[in-house]
Amino acid sequence: MIKYFSKDSILESDSFFRRNLINCLSGYKSLNLIGTQDSTGKTNLAPFSQVFHIGASPPLVGMLVRPHTVKRDTLENILETGFFTLNQVTPEFYKEAHWTSARWEGSEFEGTGLKPEYFEDFPAPFVKDSPVKLGCSLVETQTLKVNQTILVIGSIDHIFVEEEGLRTDGSLDLNVLETVTVSGLDEYHVGKKLARLSYAKSDREVEEI
Amino acid sequence: MIKYFSKDSILESDSFFRRNLINCLSGYKSLNLIGTQDSTGKTNLAPFSQVFHIGASPPLVGMLVRPHTVKRDTLENILETGFFTLNQVTPEFYKEAHWTSARWEGSEFEGTGLKPEYFEDFPAPFVKDSPVKLGCSLVETQTLKVNQTILVIGSIDHIFVEEEGLRTDGSLDLNVLETVTVSGLDEYHVGKKLARLSYAKSDREVEEI
Repeated sequence: MIKYFSKDSILESDSFFRRNLINCLSGYKSLNLIGTQDSTGKTNLAPFSQVFHIGASPPLVGMLVRPHTVKRDTLENILETGFFTLNQVTPEFYKEAHWTSARWEGSEFEGTGLKPEYFEDFPAPFVKDSPVKLGCSLVETQTLKVNQTILVIGSIDHIFVEEEGLRTDGSLDLNVLETVTVSGLDEYHVGKKLARLSYAKSDREVEEI
Repeated sequence: MIKYFSKDSILESDSFFRRNLINCLSGYKSLNLIGTQDSTGKTNLAPFSQVFHIGASPPLVGMLVRPHTVKRDTLENILETGFFTLNQVTPEFYKEAHWTSARWEGSEFEGTGLKPEYFEDFPAPFVKDSPVKLGCSLVETQTLKVNQTILVIGSIDHIFVEEEGLRTDGSLDLNVLETVTVSGLDEYHVGKKLARLSYAKSDREVEEI
């Protein structure tokens, strides 16, 4: 059976119900911990599910930030220092990753017990136990007129990957890396591979590769 | 063992290797088939992995479109008619979903055998077998200065959900709906739930709910 919601019925529904539903509609979302620090070196760590690929050459990543949420520290630190890290999450520490979204007085690293890691003089902390860590620099920000959400675009300057998950063609085996994905606001999953598929051509059906 | 890539080593690497790697770095991505039609009613269907939540009130969705790819028809149709559909993919038809990315002379529906479905006079086709279907209208587009990628923002006007996957709190059980997620350019997965976690507070550890 199919359940239908019109825009009016969504707007009239309970705000908790609406938030849960709308956050699930795009499907599974990427999960990354974003590491930053302010100009005094105080570190911050926050979970983001709206990080996405923008381009491969040069390598660019985008993320959406709400200006008026608890995650504001992340944006302020990025604007202040110009740098941030992205860290994939595994089942070993997804509960600590979720816990970083609480309102902590001090650093989320101290609060949750997640260990920071530094690379040379890069001015943002990485998450030590993450299997895929990116060091990024700010390229530009754009404010979306429609609801003041801020799109942050970063250049991927440093990549650290667990070798066991790196294939010879450059792709990552996210099942081996045990990358966690999130749905809605609070539900976490790992992936279970169906197949890789061949480059699509209209004169033949796609095949598993 | 950790493998390190600097920005320079990424830019100097083989373009196939680079594209595979960079496309995997954000983690699992949402997968949606976007349905559109032109002013003559000719339908188009294309897979997108860069669809994301922008806001819940009003309900807004965003997607990134490259202007110079085979998926250009989608953007042109959206600009022409102002409407599009988003359709989650299941293991039953993920191969056909991938196949829609080939260069088809006619409609991707006819080419791949996926069945279209229409709702009243909404001017874009839905995918009949999809468990989560959204009818959206164009709100605004923004071109990213950095690489001319286009951000399309849509209002979610109609939602169709398989009832078996809709929980009483509004969230969707994507495991039950068998929603497919994609990594990199060509690898498909289903999700396997770890847990839902309680609202995070700094004075207590998060719990499974």
